[in-house]
Amino acid sequence: MAEILAASKPSDWRALDPENTLYLELATGRVVIELAPRFAPQHVANIKTLVREGFFDGLAIDRVQDNFVAQWGDADNKKPLGTAERTLPAEFIVAAKDVTYARLPDPDTYASDTGFSGGLPVARDPKIGRAWLVHCYGMVGVGRGDDVESGNGSELYAVIGQAPRQLDRNAALVGRVVQGMDLLASLPRGGSPLGFYKDPQQRMPIKSMRVAADVPGPQRTQLEVMNTDSHSFAELVESRRNRREPWYKVPADRIDVCNVPIPVRPMSKSAQ
Amino acid sequence: MAEILAASKPSDWRALDPENTLYLELATGRVVIELAPRFAPQHVANIKTLVREGFFDGLAIDRVQDNFVAQWGDADNKKPLGTAERTLPAEFIVAAKDVTYARLPDPDTYASDTGFSGGLPVARDPKIGRAWLVHCYGMVGVGRGDDVESGNGSELYAVIGQAPRQLDRNAALVGRVVQGMDLLASLPRGGSPLGFYKDPQQRMPIKSMRVAADVPGPQRTQLEVMNTDSHSFAELVESRRNRREPWYKVPADRIDVCNVPIPVRPMSKSAQ
Repeated sequence: MAEILAASKPSDWRALDPENTLYLELATGRVVIELAPRFAPQHVANIKTLVREGFFDGLAIDRVQDNFVAQWGDADNKKPLGTAERTLPAEFIVAAKDVTYARLPDPDTYASDTGFSGGLPVARDPKIGRAWLVHCYGMVGVGRGDDVESGNGSELYAVIGQAPRQLDRNAALVGRVVQGMDLLASLPRGGSPLGFYKDPQQRMPIKSMRVAADVPGPQRTQLEVMNTDSHSFAELVESRRNRREPWYKVPADRIDVCNVPIPVRPMSKSAQ
Repeated sequence: MAEILAASKPSDWRALDPENTLYLELATGRVVIELAPRFAPQHVANIKTLVREGFFDGLAIDRVQDNFVAQWGDADNKKPLGTAERTLPAEFIVAAKDVTYARLPDPDTYASDTGFSGGLPVARDPKIGRAWLVHCYGMVGVGRGDDVESGNGSELYAVIGQAPRQLDRNAALVGRVVQGMDLLASLPRGGSPLGFYKDPQQRMPIKSMRVAADVPGPQRTQLEVMNTDSHSFAELVESRRNRREPWYKVPADRIDVCNVPIPVRPMSKSAQ
């Protein structure tokens, strides 16, 4: 993998778009989230409205369920939503024709096929022409109640364990953590059912949540993501399907979409 | 799931065998590991020798790699192994005919089929008559060098993220964490390559590691595990393949072997 990254060309990478990047600021550091407006445009827009109106500032990570999700927002449902929408259409699937798609060759338990689109893990059902984001480790979604339109982005979660694929097509995924997953995944687990903290004091406070475009340039985290439709990414996928390191004696010759790393690296100074 | 657990019969459960249960004692609490002697008998025996000779006492969790493993033992390779073996046969696969097998109906990316045997996730290749334990969340394995016989149990790891199925058939899995996974999964990640801690001071010390049979009865953690060949477990699998809670609008009608919870509960006082 290191060889492939070293041999990649600058055109194999793209910088994060500051207008579609969020910073979740914790006492332990910054979590960087790349948003996915192509898959959930209204959810992404609403989350940006909430962020820009300071909704998340002073709230907390209130739920950490082992091998499932870390969730943050307004667990007590007390904070006004400002100008943001209260309900949103269920943006759980999209028309497959509307998204680029680099297909993986291997079978998947949950979907006809899987692959990558714009740096995100995607599943597809060609028979009905639909595609959807996959709940892999690090993906960020929108909590909702039983009504499919009850989510509005005021409760967000990140996957911190085995991909909970049963959530696919049941919730709006809005992006992916591209830096700082360890800060979420290493939080103490909540002791109440579903991983909520028993005592509000145990919650990890959110210092602030910001759209990167609203943060002065020098304070931004300058990252670039490998293009998942690049030749380098295809090489990387193959190198992970069949590990060539001497340690591996039985290469799998297969890979699950959630086992493919999507490389992220600091931008070179010259490219900033 | 709660309904199925409530309706289960006492015969659907079995108590942990104290002779094949390990306690990893940390400052934060006890991690309980059920061993799998049927799949890796010589590794299990060697680990028990190491444990009984106090090998792990005072060592530490020295590696925590995000979305991969937490590993403990003697990273510095300085501590004598006592009477334990230095090398062991590669117990990575077994004859399928030697293990019971409750098959899952759904396709798997990595294996011909998957299921459960004695409370453990298993994959199988009926064509060659082989079966092996699967690297799901919470499974415990034996670190080794490039030589397949170089593992001896003095470095152990537990899976703390997306199932690293590329390790299947490449390493000896020796059991599963049945309580305390949160203590391992919430540890700070190591900052060096592969998740090793930069500073030995950052390591989580191991107070002791014990075979449950060597611990006085009142100090044991009395747990029972659902029999994976029981009718209740089959019902549970089906309830997880198609979630009936009102929140779920699109039941998956599928499940990955690593998404099936294997229930563990405190033993009733009367059964102890």
